[in-house]
Amino acid sequence: MSIIVVGTVAFDSIETPYGSAERILGGSASYFAVAASFFAPVAIVGVIGRDFPQEYLDIFRQRGIKLEGLTKAQGETFHWRGRYHEDLNVRDTLELHLNVLSEFIPSLPGPYRGAEYVFLGNIDPGMQMEVLNQLGGVRLVVCDTMDHWIRERYNELRKVLKRAEILTINDSEARLLSGEHNIVRAARAILKMGPKVVLVKRGEYGVLQFSDSSIFATPAYPLEEVFDPTGAGDSFAGGFMGQLARSRDRSEQGMRRAIVYGSMVASFAVEDFGLKRLTTVSLAEIEERYRRFTELTHFHT
Amino acid sequence: MSIIVVGTVAFDSIETPYGSAERILGGSASYFAVAASFFAPVAIVGVIGRDFPQEYLDIFRQRGIKLEGLTKAQGETFHWRGRYHEDLNVRDTLELHLNVLSEFIPSLPGPYRGAEYVFLGNIDPGMQMEVLNQLGGVRLVVCDTMDHWIRERYNELRKVLKRAEILTINDSEARLLSGEHNIVRAARAILKMGPKVVLVKRGEYGVLQFSDSSIFATPAYPLEEVFDPTGAGDSFAGGFMGQLARSRDRSEQGMRRAIVYGSMVASFAVEDFGLKRLTTVSLAEIEERYRRFTELTHFHT
Repeated sequence: MSIIVVGTVAFDSIETPYGSAERILGGSASYFAVAASFFAPVAIVGVIGRDFPQEYLDIFRQRGIKLEGLTKAQGETFHWRGRYHEDLNVRDTLELHLNVLSEFIPSLPGPYRGAEYVFLGNIDPGMQMEVLNQLGGVRLVVCDTMDHWIRERYNELRKVLKRAEILTINDSEARLLSGEHNIVRAARAILKMGPKVVLVKRGEYGVLQFSDSSIFATPAYPLEEVFDPTGAGDSFAGGFMGQLARSRDRSEQGMRRAIVYGSMVASFAVEDFGLKRLTTVSLAEIEERYRRFTELTHFHT
Repeated sequence: MSIIVVGTVAFDSIETPYGSAERILGGSASYFAVAASFFAPVAIVGVIGRDFPQEYLDIFRQRGIKLEGLTKAQGETFHWRGRYHEDLNVRDTLELHLNVLSEFIPSLPGPYRGAEYVFLGNIDPGMQMEVLNQLGGVRLVVCDTMDHWIRERYNELRKVLKRAEILTINDSEARLLSGEHNIVRAARAILKMGPKVVLVKRGEYGVLQFSDSSIFATPAYPLEEVFDPTGAGDSFAGGFMGQLARSRDRSEQGMRRAIVYGSMVASFAVEDFGLKRLTTVSLAEIEERYRRFTELTHFHT
């Protein structure tokens, strides 16, 4: 198995200024896996409840996503309900039901333990560490997190960061984690916590990549229609890691291309509710948008 | 004269989380002119009061900026007092004294009326129109504005926009002017108001250029130390227009290069209080940062 992702598989209930959706397929592992599946084989490690419908499993299967590590537990599936403001960068969590996730201890199927690429999606750092401890000679660990874990599980998160090569984090979370307001200083502080590379996700403003030796700055693809930003960060991570796995190129230029691919996948993800757009888009469309993006960012020196 | 700018020449009193400064040289015309002066000859049209000190005039003279159009009126110089939040993107205006600006009617010295490049800085659209009416066969008119004029002088502003080829505007102002929240839709709506090109200034997130036929997206230069964002937009416009005048290249690629030059000048401007950094930086340093910027944004396709 090329890429494994541990994270949430969820019901999302979403309100935006443009409409709403009830109990659609969501969760960090879902978005990541569908996004990565355009580029490389991917497997989910996570938990669902008895109420999880077959049609959602079929969405994964249609993308060739492996589900041996997706446990079905007694109880109900993790459910998140959120509402976006007119400024889609701002959202409120209205309900959060951990349900089966509260008792979940990840267990990797044997063949997954030698995975080359591992994404530790946005879940409890304790669960992320559990996965790390089950892994063999992994090629690349990328980790994500959120403000809740930075506040509530700081010490556990710091331990995970020591063992992750790349951290994906949004700008407000980078500030919270580092205590630095300036984003360059925040990223430099986080690099000292362990990761060799920090990818700062800035939503509609693009991505910044920081390492000890370089910075890469890229804008987002300008979109006229953004319906639902849910899962954009996980879709970015999926496209990024998928492209890394496809190209097997981790040079500076290979990383930059992977960041742009991740960005393009995320730009499709937000064009419709939930995973709807990512289940209809083709790799050819992603490649075409990548090509278009190079045109609209390039300037001759 | 290559470039003329009409705008404010002011005293700025500024508080940021990093310090404060009293009655330093500020105003849209001041920042623009100093920024543009690295690239091309520039002249200011504006008004100062009797209290305006010789040392501030010397700052302009040291940069070779022409001052025949800078009127000294009875009364006191325009004075703005503002305070920045820890998030430097947010500021409060604490005091605003128009003083001599309230009675100002711009009058262009004869030789200025044939200027090739005109920047209508952030002042009352009625004054901007007055300047337009005094101009002969101008090569390029670039216009700036702010939320106050969009709210209070909407009709006058719309008349100016019909006669400007390029509008520089920040993202919240673009939303206000167009009534569209999405920035791509906002820019498209503004293009219908007259300008052939809209440059959306996004502060630390970079710049978007929109025309009927293309989009250009570029991030800002990532800075570790931002002391004072005052004048960043005017410094951007000055660098942009200065480079256009220097290169005489208004092709798509010429415009993109000018945007990046503007962005680099603005990145220096915010590194110290007021105009301090722009009066010590050299063209060689600007060119070096431009080169460095191409490295940190480029990805091979």
